Amino acid sequence: MDLPKRVEIVEVSPRDGLQMLPNFVPTADKIKLINLVKDAGFKRIEAVSFVSPKHVPQMADASEILAAIGDDPNIDEVALALNEKGYKRAIEADVDWICYVMAATETFSNKNANTSIAGSLQMTKNCIAEAHEKNIKVRASISVTWICPYQGDVPKERVLEITKELVEAGADEIAYNDTVGKATPNDVYELCQRAKEMFPNQQFAAHFHDTHSTALANIYAALMAGWNIFDSSAGGLGGCPFSPGASGNIATEKVVWMLEKMGIETGIDLEKLRLCAEFAKSIEKTAKTFVD
Amino acid sequence: MDLPKRVEIVEVSPRDGLQMLPNFVPTADKIKLINLVKDAGFKRIEAVSFVSPKHVPQMADASEILAAIGDDPNIDEVALALNEKGYKRAIEADVDWICYVMAATETFSNKNANTSIAGSLQMTKNCIAEAHEKNIKVRASISVTWICPYQGDVPKERVLEITKELVEAGADEIAYNDTVGKATPNDVYELCQRAKEMFPNQQFAAHFHDTHSTALANIYAALMAGWNIFDSSAGGLGGCPFSPGASGNIATEKVVWMLEKMGIETGIDLEKLRLCAEFAKSIEKTAKTFVD
Repeated sequence: MDLPKRVEIVEVSPRDGLQMLPNFVPTADKIKLINLVKDAGFKRIEAVSFVSPKHVPQMADASEILAAIGDDPNIDEVALALNEKGYKRAIEADVDWICYVMAATETFSNKNANTSIAGSLQMTKNCIAEAHEKNIKVRASISVTWICPYQGDVPKERVLEITKELVEAGADEIAYNDTVGKATPNDVYELCQRAKEMFPNQQFAAHFHDTHSTALANIYAALMAGWNIFDSSAGGLGGCPFSPGASGNIATEKVVWMLEKMGIETGIDLEKLRLCAEFAKSIEKTAKTFVD
Repeated sequence: MDLPKRVEIVEVSPRDGLQMLPNFVPTADKIKLINLVKDAGFKRIEAVSFVSPKHVPQMADASEILAAIGDDPNIDEVALALNEKGYKRAIEADVDWICYVMAATETFSNKNANTSIAGSLQMTKNCIAEAHEKNIKVRASISVTWICPYQGDVPKERVLEITKELVEAGADEIAYNDTVGKATPNDVYELCQRAKEMFPNQQFAAHFHDTHSTALANIYAALMAGWNIFDSSAGGLGGCPFSPGASGNIATEKVVWMLEKMGIETGIDLEKLRLCAEFAKSIEKTAKTFVD
């Protein structure tokens, strides 16, 4: 079976991993984690999100973090946004990538971003147009691609329709997210295969959670469909806290171990990655243990 | 992609799960675990091993356990053996299946069973012949099929040669074991596919460890090659303690969750299985905590 020779891993621990920790992680520690991640060989890092500090106080120092790390030409830093205000702040901060998050179901869209699918599709298109004017790339990221905690199984046709709109809008990358970690490899293979067949020139990425220990199986399934960009989080930190039953991003060190053992290049130094995972876990422990 | 519609899971916690716990698990608890496993719907259970009580004192009560559970016509009980004395005791105990264990590398064979590959191949053949006289089935189980802790990557050709001899000897089932949990899904697919192609009428089974969280990916790979019998252990108990770096059988509840979610029947009641896992873990905790 032909698998990609090389895979890009987008390290999401600085944003997705830390974002919901109950106590504020000192900005210096966030920057230190990003520097460890850079040192391990990652070329794209989900560094911050531009979301309401009222809802996600952990990311209130996003601008400060970007100012500290933003000018490294070897690294693409990614900022997450899920509304107009967020993407405009990201553009203003001159990030390399905006990860604009929408959802595949109405209920999830309403609960997570307070808008309809049509509304966030329109907003994603606006984001792409405005970002491209500033040479900023946009990942259009689809939450609950396979299974929604509110609406259950998501029809693949619906996801492919949304994908089509995003392709036509010029998304530099489209990501499918198994937000609750309930996707299985057969469904992953089928959808990824169909998307790749319909849009052979589109760049795709996938983001799997390890809730039921299926994340590596799902990555393998996506690889077989020719997908070669995956998100993961050092130490397995984080996961979408707004999804009932969700837990745990797949740990980057597990992904890298498997891929390298399969003979697929990642460019990541596994030993240095273990330092990232250790530091990420120590941050998590501290931010869960002490109350300011 | 065509996957099997139904999978048989062989529950190994009573033997593989308990065997190396430092303190003796009361026979009554072992029987209780087996009864919980039966109640959850398993049709084949690795119940005991006939090995030297000097090396594996935990299994000294094998005959007693079999006497207590052995006459249930709905359940196939399996006894493990890795030498002549062991398989003869298993035949005498009139088990349903003998799992006769050999290895794919000389070093592992010597360290684990104190014999060469040729020696244990011959012994497996003897076991099959003698067991068949008593209508007992034999699984010929190949340790370190993909990767050996002493010799590294195992040549697939070598495994297929051994497989050929076992097919010709009339093994009712041949199992490939990822004893150290370092196999990756591409290698699993390739070997399982080739074995199935060469021996389309042979019954195969696979036994994966989850050391690097790849077990479900490996099961998925084997499913794609048409394999449909897998070992696992409730609660993830056990794993081969003689293999440096090995840890952790794949937990049955994870396997069942994934397969059922994929629409593949297992016949297992997931809620009752969770009771098995809980009880297995409580046994493990006790047997690791208190010293007699």
